[in-house]
Amino acid sequence: MGEIEAGPLLSTIITPNDLKKLDRTQLQQVCNELRQFIIDCVSVHGGHFGASLGVVELSVALHYVFNTPDDQLVWDVGHQAYGHKILTGRRKIFHTNRKYGGLSGFPKRSESEYDAFGVGHSSTSISAALGMAIASKLKGELHRQHVAIIGDGAMTAGLPFEALNHAGVSNTNLLVVLNDNNMSIDPNVGALKEYLTDITTSQSWNKFRDDFWKFLGKLPYADFQRELVSKIETGLKGVISKSSNLFEALGLRYFGPIDGHNVLKLTEVLEDMKNIAGPKILHIKTVKGKGYGVAEKDQTLWHAPGTFDKITGKINKRIVTVPEPPKYQDVFGHTLVELAEKNPRIMGITPAMPSGCSMKIMMDVMPDRALDVGIAEQHAVTLSAGLATQGMRVFCNIYSSFMQRAYDMVVHDVAIQKLPVIFCLDRAGLVGDDGPTHHGAYDMAYMRCIPNMIVSAPMNEAELRNLMFTAQLDENVAPFVIRYPRGNGVMPDWRTQMERISIGTGRTIKTGEEVAILSIGHPGNFVVDACKILTTDGLNPAHVDMRFVKPIDEDLLHQIAQSFKKIITVEDGTIVGGFGSAVLEFLAEHNYSVEVKMLGIPDEIIEHGKPEELHRECGYDAQAIAEAVRAMSSVSVHETSL
Amino acid sequence: MGEIEAGPLLSTIITPNDLKKLDRTQLQQVCNELRQFIIDCVSVHGGHFGASLGVVELSVALHYVFNTPDDQLVWDVGHQAYGHKILTGRRKIFHTNRKYGGLSGFPKRSESEYDAFGVGHSSTSISAALGMAIASKLKGELHRQHVAIIGDGAMTAGLPFEALNHAGVSNTNLLVVLNDNNMSIDPNVGALKEYLTDITTSQSWNKFRDDFWKFLGKLPYADFQRELVSKIETGLKGVISKSSNLFEALGLRYFGPIDGHNVLKLTEVLEDMKNIAGPKILHIKTVKGKGYGVAEKDQTLWHAPGTFDKITGKINKRIVTVPEPPKYQDVFGHTLVELAEKNPRIMGITPAMPSGCSMKIMMDVMPDRALDVGIAEQHAVTLSAGLATQGMRVFCNIYSSFMQRAYDMVVHDVAIQKLPVIFCLDRAGLVGDDGPTHHGAYDMAYMRCIPNMIVSAPMNEAELRNLMFTAQLDENVAPFVIRYPRGNGVMPDWRTQMERISIGTGRTIKTGEEVAILSIGHPGNFVVDACKILTTDGLNPAHVDMRFVKPIDEDLLHQIAQSFKKIITVEDGTIVGGFGSAVLEFLAEHNYSVEVKMLGIPDEIIEHGKPEELHRECGYDAQAIAEAVRAMSSVSVHETSL
Repeated sequence: MGEIEAGPLLSTIITPNDLKKLDRTQLQQVCNELRQFIIDCVSVHGGHFGASLGVVELSVALHYVFNTPDDQLVWDVGHQAYGHKILTGRRKIFHTNRKYGGLSGFPKRSESEYDAFGVGHSSTSISAALGMAIASKLKGELHRQHVAIIGDGAMTAGLPFEALNHAGVSNTNLLVVLNDNNMSIDPNVGALKEYLTDITTSQSWNKFRDDFWKFLGKLPYADFQRELVSKIETGLKGVISKSSNLFEALGLRYFGPIDGHNVLKLTEVLEDMKNIAGPKILHIKTVKGKGYGVAEKDQTLWHAPGTFDKITGKINKRIVTVPEPPKYQDVFGHTLVELAEKNPRIMGITPAMPSGCSMKIMMDVMPDRALDVGIAEQHAVTLSAGLATQGMRVFCNIYSSFMQRAYDMVVHDVAIQKLPVIFCLDRAGLVGDDGPTHHGAYDMAYMRCIPNMIVSAPMNEAELRNLMFTAQLDENVAPFVIRYPRGNGVMPDWRTQMERISIGTGRTIKTGEEVAILSIGHPGNFVVDACKILTTDGLNPAHVDMRFVKPIDEDLLHQIAQSFKKIITVEDGTIVGGFGSAVLEFLAEHNYSVEVKMLGIPDEIIEHGKPEELHRECGYDAQAIAEAVRAMSSVSVHETSL
Repeated sequence: MGEIEAGPLLSTIITPNDLKKLDRTQLQQVCNELRQFIIDCVSVHGGHFGASLGVVELSVALHYVFNTPDDQLVWDVGHQAYGHKILTGRRKIFHTNRKYGGLSGFPKRSESEYDAFGVGHSSTSISAALGMAIASKLKGELHRQHVAIIGDGAMTAGLPFEALNHAGVSNTNLLVVLNDNNMSIDPNVGALKEYLTDITTSQSWNKFRDDFWKFLGKLPYADFQRELVSKIETGLKGVISKSSNLFEALGLRYFGPIDGHNVLKLTEVLEDMKNIAGPKILHIKTVKGKGYGVAEKDQTLWHAPGTFDKITGKINKRIVTVPEPPKYQDVFGHTLVELAEKNPRIMGITPAMPSGCSMKIMMDVMPDRALDVGIAEQHAVTLSAGLATQGMRVFCNIYSSFMQRAYDMVVHDVAIQKLPVIFCLDRAGLVGDDGPTHHGAYDMAYMRCIPNMIVSAPMNEAELRNLMFTAQLDENVAPFVIRYPRGNGVMPDWRTQMERISIGTGRTIKTGEEVAILSIGHPGNFVVDACKILTTDGLNPAHVDMRFVKPIDEDLLHQIAQSFKKIITVEDGTIVGGFGSAVLEFLAEHNYSVEVKMLGIPDEIIEHGKPEELHRECGYDAQAIAEAVRAMSSVSVHETSL
């Protein structure tokens, strides 16, 4: 399956210049065809869905009104940017979206001059666009427009607030389009959401003023009217003009809310806004999944549904004949409930990923004890620390790459105080299709350098359960990281009896000769396969599942270092400062002379692709591990010269 | 110098229970005595000053009204908490504040049950207190109160916004006291500051409403009045009740602003607020440095003035007879201006540290090109990335430990896109008196694991200048970290001609025998001293200043590994995953068998003290380095057994 056919108007649009040649009256048709193109493509090739459908009209309107790429669009999160990509020269290759070697699922500077800023994580767009706007101002390029398109979900993060606080006093040509659809991947939460609903549903100040002046017209006494008007204007000036609106309180001119699916209205308003100097915000209301009925109805399911039958709206599922291993996230979710039923001090915290991390399972049965705090990783961690001071055992579940958002809170609020918060890092290691922004490549390196931390990774579902069980025991008095990958495990019968693991101990999977392979986490399964492959070579390496990066199992390492002159380390994380380096540090500290080969994610940005493709590329799938053993078995340790 | 004498009333207060026994009319005297005690103590022993003077009345009022420690106070940043510490059992040892082995300059859980949460970095208090409040609610401890005391400066960070967004829908017993003094260390910036000023100076809604009803009373037509009132109430309800105030927009009940130096008024209002359920915010206006004239006038200077003559207000300065080496931060500041005068693309960004990092030097002469964005590290980095996309060369200066706040932005917005943002990390390594929260211990570890990064550290002022010069050249196309310590350098004549350094190259300071010492950054000077010490032992180690942690100088390392069987690495950073580990990784990759001893910050939380005390404690001062060379010279590499 390859290129998708476009409708008659969309077919004529290679770049936004072609779009600009059309008459305004044709724009709705362009929108219809663009929407159909996205449906046609995603139904066959998969990808994000609802977000891009929701901004079809906005995408067309922005490229119609603004002079892209000289004017710059920053699409927050970026999975809403399919329409943008299709309109900017990438329609014919859009079927390669998110495929190995193909287009990125997110805007990417190296892919197109129309992609002003690379995105993937949420909430960066206002800061980035403000930087561009400040640069343009400094360079005297006053004609240039800079637009951040950001969802209401992304607005709950702290970063946009920091950016607005600066933008409000910056006097730059910045337009923020607030795409308000009440959703992150899951329904949005928090006070801001309620506030936006409030703006939208209540009478706006303009409406009130109109009514009020109409009413005043009925008053018979002109003098009173004048005095009244003056009084009101004076009184309201201080109270309302600056503070009637949260965004105006922060110094941005606020416009809206308007219907984000009315492309003509959008073009008109955007044209007007081009001529308004200074920072400003346009609030548009859209529907995630707009134009595809079932997607409008179940927006979480249709955030990224996989492939589906576009006629029936039926999502394709693989037909399973034998029991399959579960997703790690579901093992987490169900196990958490099991534990929480017995331990009343357990709580669950997720920043806006209840479905993605399966915290939803606990939220459904224990709504008081499992909380979604919105896209707010920093708050999630410091809140967890606050809860931990009161004796609560918090499982704070954050995707590995999103954990980067709360690094200081891990150091400052959790580790320094040695609070036993349990960090479950989902999507650790290479995540696949989402690519570089989402790979959880650095967590072992950035976590293990912090004192007091326990850093672990399970090789399979049973170990994940055992680690979770161990972490919530009273005997654990330190922050406890459990990292596990995206996708499925290896144990169809995963509901094992949970057992305490002695913290900082590994386990020997297989004894052997000459070479010892030390793995951490799920790549241990690749090692098992590699050992099978190697039997045909007559090679018999030992294999140890270390389980803990920190504290590392020193007894086990002493045994290994005393028995083997050759070690291979395998990890689903960067080899710079990661698990392998921890082994090197041990060996150096104890002055062992051992040859060590480290396999893992190399020190470069890894693009998107299927995990298997990427494991192969990075050289730590079963074949690569087997090859490393072969190579090591045929050479001996170099001697240093004097 | 030791214990400070307290006034007659303060002398009777050992714990807050003693305070509660006093009559309200005595509270002002307690405040006066507490203020005097702080002045007496800080003038002699040094420490933070202005912030604690500003909250004397608040500290007394909070402990008078609330049932601490059962009710919990979280003091944001924490250098405002001297009064709190003095009132909670630590008066007699307060003279040990910030001294090695003495009290911490910040609230610290292990120090007192009254310190509900450890702080140091700003903006964590609302999240932490909300966590406590949620735990109390779950546990049914409904009588407990949880108070976050946060400055308006700290409110510009994203974290409090994330917390308010959650608090506003949380229905917990949370009180936020917004201590509004218009200051961070430097004057506060941003839209929020202007908004708070606006609230304070403009007519409040209450005032307007009062006036309005009074006016309406004059209207002769009762019917019209009723209709008018109804119309207004309906109209205003949607517009104002929820959104007349930024904090109410976020779902918190807002009270204030009130005078934070009126202790009676404070106790009354706080008493009232105890009985109001749900999340609420009390806005108080205070003056930083209140009650000490010169401190009120120059609030930045008196943030932490060192010791001073309390009568004359003259700050004690060491008498200098010979030219002294400058502070690294000033070398940064002056060098930046020198470079920016020649390279128009250079910009400077600081998140609220213009004085602390000396960005102020550039801000004064090039106000358009050097910006203080407020306490907003995340925004500072993504903004810098946005600027970099437009060809600007941004020097983004952030204290090493605060850089942790923007880790994801470094990965996601800068490194993945390989944008040549220059990160100048001030206060890298052990910072001294500020202690664990402020030590810049982890930056080499958490930065070098990110692909595309250049990570460097100068050994002295000339190298700092050369690294800055090199980083802004067109030939540099990658993110460039330059980390340097707090305090003074080593070169009185520091205005050296700047020279390009080939990226990723070290330099040999001294050739030698048997042991090679590899240092990174300023501890290279300790190595120089150690080598002098060792001449008396007849030992002659080689010394190399590596300058770059990444890319590491492989040519030089090959030479060393081929010439020496013993290496000592020295760094002012954690030895877990840091510079020493980078050396180990090189040696492992190239299969060298070399004995390596790593000196640096050990894997534990290092408390406060003078840098020299801490370098000694951590074992990498000149004596410790010499000792390591001696120890290594007398033993040989262990052989591994088979």
